[in-house]
Amino acid sequence: MSATQDAPANCKVVLASTIAKKLGEEVREGVKTLNKAPLLVGFLSSGDPAARTYAEFTGKTCRENGFDFELREVDREDLEDAIIAANQDSNVGGIIVYYPIFGNRQDQYLQQIVDVGKDVEGLSHQYIFNMYQNVRFLDAAHKKKSILPCTPLAVIKILEHLQIYNTILPYGNRLHGHNITVINRSEVVGRPLAALLANDGACVYSVDIDDVQQFHRGQGLRKRKHEVVEKPGWTLENCLPLSDVVISGVPGDKFKVPLNLLREGAVCINFSSEKNFTPEVKEKASIYVPAIGKVTIMVLLRNLLRILQNRGESDATPADSLETRGTVEESNPA
Amino acid sequence: MSATQDAPANCKVVLASTIAKKLGEEVREGVKTLNKAPLLVGFLSSGDPAARTYAEFTGKTCRENGFDFELREVDREDLEDAIIAANQDSNVGGIIVYYPIFGNRQDQYLQQIVDVGKDVEGLSHQYIFNMYQNVRFLDAAHKKKSILPCTPLAVIKILEHLQIYNTILPYGNRLHGHNITVINRSEVVGRPLAALLANDGACVYSVDIDDVQQFHRGQGLRKRKHEVVEKPGWTLENCLPLSDVVISGVPGDKFKVPLNLLREGAVCINFSSEKNFTPEVKEKASIYVPAIGKVTIMVLLRNLLRILQNRGESDATPADSLETRGTVEESNPA
Repeated sequence: MSATQDAPANCKVVLASTIAKKLGEEVREGVKTLNKAPLLVGFLSSGDPAARTYAEFTGKTCRENGFDFELREVDREDLEDAIIAANQDSNVGGIIVYYPIFGNRQDQYLQQIVDVGKDVEGLSHQYIFNMYQNVRFLDAAHKKKSILPCTPLAVIKILEHLQIYNTILPYGNRLHGHNITVINRSEVVGRPLAALLANDGACVYSVDIDDVQQFHRGQGLRKRKHEVVEKPGWTLENCLPLSDVVISGVPGDKFKVPLNLLREGAVCINFSSEKNFTPEVKEKASIYVPAIGKVTIMVLLRNLLRILQNRGESDATPADSLETRGTVEESNPA
Repeated sequence: MSATQDAPANCKVVLASTIAKKLGEEVREGVKTLNKAPLLVGFLSSGDPAARTYAEFTGKTCRENGFDFELREVDREDLEDAIIAANQDSNVGGIIVYYPIFGNRQDQYLQQIVDVGKDVEGLSHQYIFNMYQNVRFLDAAHKKKSILPCTPLAVIKILEHLQIYNTILPYGNRLHGHNITVINRSEVVGRPLAALLANDGACVYSVDIDDVQQFHRGQGLRKRKHEVVEKPGWTLENCLPLSDVVISGVPGDKFKVPLNLLREGAVCINFSSEKNFTPEVKEKASIYVPAIGKVTIMVLLRNLLRILQNRGESDATPADSLETRGTVEESNPA
């Protein structure tokens, strides 16, 4: 009568396609409010096969969701002029450049060539500055949302879908109480992601190959933006047992998250193209998201709609058709 | 430009009245489906002033929500016969007895005198057994819900309101990943509460004056009900830094939860009539619920509706008008 029956481990695997589908509906609703299909122009200037695959996938997703996409393959020496021409062409709604191109600081230079009003990737300095400073709007009237970089924003949208953002808390503080480990501190994903999560109230452990940094708004979230504190001597052994959410994006197939350090019932998200979690993660995690790519590309289209709204080229109430509750993206702070 | 502005600590104080109001709407919807106002009979057989206050508050809440209430004051020597008479009276919908009466094991004897079909407090052995064994229905067809004791269930309803129950997880596992400290292990509240939370997937540290016990369904929630493990040598110093939810109900005004041990952003709930948390809890907690009484009394009325449904005296689809998503009480497991 009181016999204990053991069952398989309970882990909910959530696929990016499920979340992308939901975002897709939102995006297609937004496109309907426009007079014509928005044109996204992609620039491919390298032989990098991953860049070409990403470009092709962008095109496919654009067409499936009511956007036009044009891939412009130009020599890298001509790229700067080509971007400037696209900036000036009123038929071009948004611009995406497939990096790496030179693979050095010249790539960062090119990122600043794209017009801020056409930058769907959120790489312009103004957007990056706003993100780190926890400034969410471009205008005093709070009608124009600052653009967030696609991959970090995709992780945010996933955490929102997983209800890790608690909508009972006020806008801007909805990760309060969560300890989150982010493994990867690249300028493109890991560091902006840690900043976004901490600005929303989480205590974030940002783990790099060399060190651990804590991103946090302080006890009671008294600070209006996060601060970064070095944690000398800390490693994953310190961070993982504290963390209810673990997000990993280490490139290559060498690194695996040490599951013995994982907290029972942790939420685990992989954003590396290689799997940073071995399949046994399902023995301990409450929720596991094995990949995020499909969400990232949908966020890119979402950003394109957003910049059209910011430029006043959409008839929709600014930002309205894009909004869902609970995240850094919400338009009406409580 | 990048100056850090410190603000007051962010803590959302959630009042029991807010949650009781929501439950009240649900309860009044349920009453509408009945042919006549259900009668709750309360037995008062002691001079305990707290018992009388509770009885008066029950009557007031009944009348406000479409129930009839009758307080029967009887000598404690006549109580057993009076309960038996109420059991047999078809006009009596539910029975509540205000304890303590003898203040010894005779009170537990009296608890088993109340007809299981009229026991709104969920104190009958069958209900208690089901609760500890994680058996949620009285029948094979899963139409009749087992009754849960009011105060522990009130805490569950509060955690549901606070969105600590994550509805993205399957029914029965929606606290997976949460570490919860419950300070108090009384048979009436603390121990059943720890069991309910653990059966729903939480790792619970049940703290008594003497020791700490862990209630848990094991890694990956492989067990179908919780098991209890002694934690020799453990105290609040071990439990609190691990816990994202802290629930305290220590009687008297001596005990205060040591806030220095509290995890930043913890959710704190007090169910003692004295405050177990000092006001400074708001410096560290993300959410604070200072009292739960108004929710408890609404849960009592909810239980009364439930037993009427179980007895087939309600025209409503069994349990339907009472259900909300996400808790031990949900009728349609995913």
